[in-house]
Amino acid sequence: MRDIAEAAELSPANLYNYFQGKNDILFFCQDSSLDRMIATLEKARSAKTSAAARLHLVIVSHLRCLLDEVEGSAAHLLTSALPPRQQRYLVTKRDRYELGVRNLIASGMRAGEFVSGDAALMARAILGALNWSVQWFSPDGPMTAEEIADKLANYLLRGLLAKTDSFKRLAGEREVQRVVREERTADERKRAAVG
Amino acid sequence: MRDIAEAAELSPANLYNYFQGKNDILFFCQDSSLDRMIATLEKARSAKTSAAARLHLVIVSHLRCLLDEVEGSAAHLLTSALPPRQQRYLVTKRDRYELGVRNLIASGMRAGEFVSGDAALMARAILGALNWSVQWFSPDGPMTAEEIADKLANYLLRGLLAKTDSFKRLAGEREVQRVVREERTADERKRAAVG
Repeated sequence: MRDIAEAAELSPANLYNYFQGKNDILFFCQDSSLDRMIATLEKARSAKTSAAARLHLVIVSHLRCLLDEVEGSAAHLLTSALPPRQQRYLVTKRDRYELGVRNLIASGMRAGEFVSGDAALMARAILGALNWSVQWFSPDGPMTAEEIADKLANYLLRGLLAKTDSFKRLAGEREVQRVVREERTADERKRAAVG
Repeated sequence: MRDIAEAAELSPANLYNYFQGKNDILFFCQDSSLDRMIATLEKARSAKTSAAARLHLVIVSHLRCLLDEVEGSAAHLLTSALPPRQQRYLVTKRDRYELGVRNLIASGMRAGEFVSGDAALMARAILGALNWSVQWFSPDGPMTAEEIADKLANYLLRGLLAKTDSFKRLAGEREVQRVVREERTADERKRAAVG
């Protein structure tokens, strides 16, 4: 707790005002990053755009949430340290998110925008490629989280698209750019509030 | 050690003939699965076939090695439990394997068979999608490791190929089928020897 308090520039006593112990902080981090991921998924679902553009938004936002956020959301991948009740709660929430990603892929397949295939497996492949980045990403490395997110999204979408030429149109889609911009502004506001 | 001995159908005393403790077993599992992965990479490198077919072989073999092998190679992903010297040794070996996968992708890019891009990042995306399967795969699930490996390989390659029609040719390539068949036979022989 002392180390965490130091990193957060709080006194240990102050930190104990909010959290009972390390597990509570871990749970809070995981729960709030899942909340953000689910919120973006909802935004993507209601966006009036192609399945590819919506999935692009979810992928970019997922990776930035893992690598680039204020609360150190990479922790969202570690549940085994938590008590069973908190673990179950998070796993259920994570399953709900994964189901949403799968449904997005399935809707693109039904519309003929994506090649037909196993939407559940594709969702797991995509989330795996993203989640694994926590193992190798370094904030001091040559690429920012945002650059990595964009390149990974392009690669992971390319494998799904029925026509790869539809891919070139994707990057310019205004709706996606608008939502990404909104998210970025919200992040910056949050950072300013924390800093 | 007692649980491991029971699972391996050995007496604990017999197990101690081979290993000094749990860490030694974990190290052995990780080291031998890395050896197998590197051996397949070498085979793929020397195969007279397309980069896509060679990468297909590496992907399928990597996933089967993780999910489907005798020694429970999924353990190859957990190094943090080991003493620092053993960790360093495995991480160096794993880096060498990752570099090999990256070089395979880069050679396909240079040949114009794959779209040009960041070969290092693509290698990480592919290995991430594969490694993450350890989190969700169940031997009692609806698909075998082999079925999953094939579907994942198709998806992960599709995102790289410059022409997606070259993809249809891939599945029929004799060289790949031959090497996969050889590997399968070797596995079965090993299983028979262990059983």
